[in-house]
Amino acid sequence: MNFLEDVVIGHHSEFGSFAFTAELIKKFATEFDPQPFHLDEEAGRRSLLGGLAASGWHVAAVAMKLRIAESQRATAEAKARGETVAVSGPSPGFRELRWIKPVLAGDTISYASEVVAVRATASKPGWGIVQARTTATNQHGDVVMTFLATVFLPQQGNAS
Amino acid sequence: MNFLEDVVIGHHSEFGSFAFTAELIKKFATEFDPQPFHLDEEAGRRSLLGGLAASGWHVAAVAMKLRIAESQRATAEAKARGETVAVSGPSPGFRELRWIKPVLAGDTISYASEVVAVRATASKPGWGIVQARTTATNQHGDVVMTFLATVFLPQQGNAS
Repeated sequence: MNFLEDVVIGHHSEFGSFAFTAELIKKFATEFDPQPFHLDEEAGRRSLLGGLAASGWHVAAVAMKLRIAESQRATAEAKARGETVAVSGPSPGFRELRWIKPVLAGDTISYASEVVAVRATASKPGWGIVQARTTATNQHGDVVMTFLATVFLPQQGNAS
Repeated sequence: MNFLEDVVIGHHSEFGSFAFTAELIKKFATEFDPQPFHLDEEAGRRSLLGGLAASGWHVAAVAMKLRIAESQRATAEAKARGETVAVSGPSPGFRELRWIKPVLAGDTISYASEVVAVRATASKPGWGIVQARTTATNQHGDVVMTFLATVFLPQQGNAS
């Protein structure tokens, strides 16, 4: 993970992709979102979603999962090069989450993000805020979800 | 679940509460958000969060879990009274998710929502949209998370 000063507007990152199988869709839904169209093929077909569909929270949580994996991979590489590595902070929230198309059983979703804003924070000295538009795209090239994520990032000299 | 015509602006619902134990926090984080402050007590204490803290996605997913449980309970009661019951549709997204305070291991979070908008949809005949402000509050009375949820709801005569 870079320091705030290293983050460039427009920087594009790819986080990899994830296959939403019927089994994984039902497992997440059973624990967190047990609506019929997330649990049962026939109920999904009869719904606005048109088939067994992943919970939107599942699609969003996988974005987080892949972003962290990518960040940890980059951090390990930077440490191996002997660089000082910043540990990113938590997130104060996000905006405009849109579930644009259903994620159906069998879909493979690719995640990416683009930095849209970088600024220092008045309330947390030594930290700043990065905003990034996260995009999830299916195997047909259709965007299925977008949101604007916000994360705290340390400034130079605030390494841990 | 009511039909669109039954939903009243300002209607307040309570979804119940959930105890975020260290074990549950680490289990969710391991699968979806493996950042140090969600996995390790000492890393949490050294972070901006001040202790082992639940992933914000975990706090949000539990809101969904409790809302669905409350909705299924209400639906079962309505069916037992012989009423025609609407099945709510999926959600097109939500807005302004704010993680305001950390949810630390041992916290018990109570969830509620209030209807802020009801409107028919032009694009999906027979359906409308309800917007509700969801609020999560800890055992000290502090609001820890809010978001503005949106859900499709059928109009009268569109029962399934």
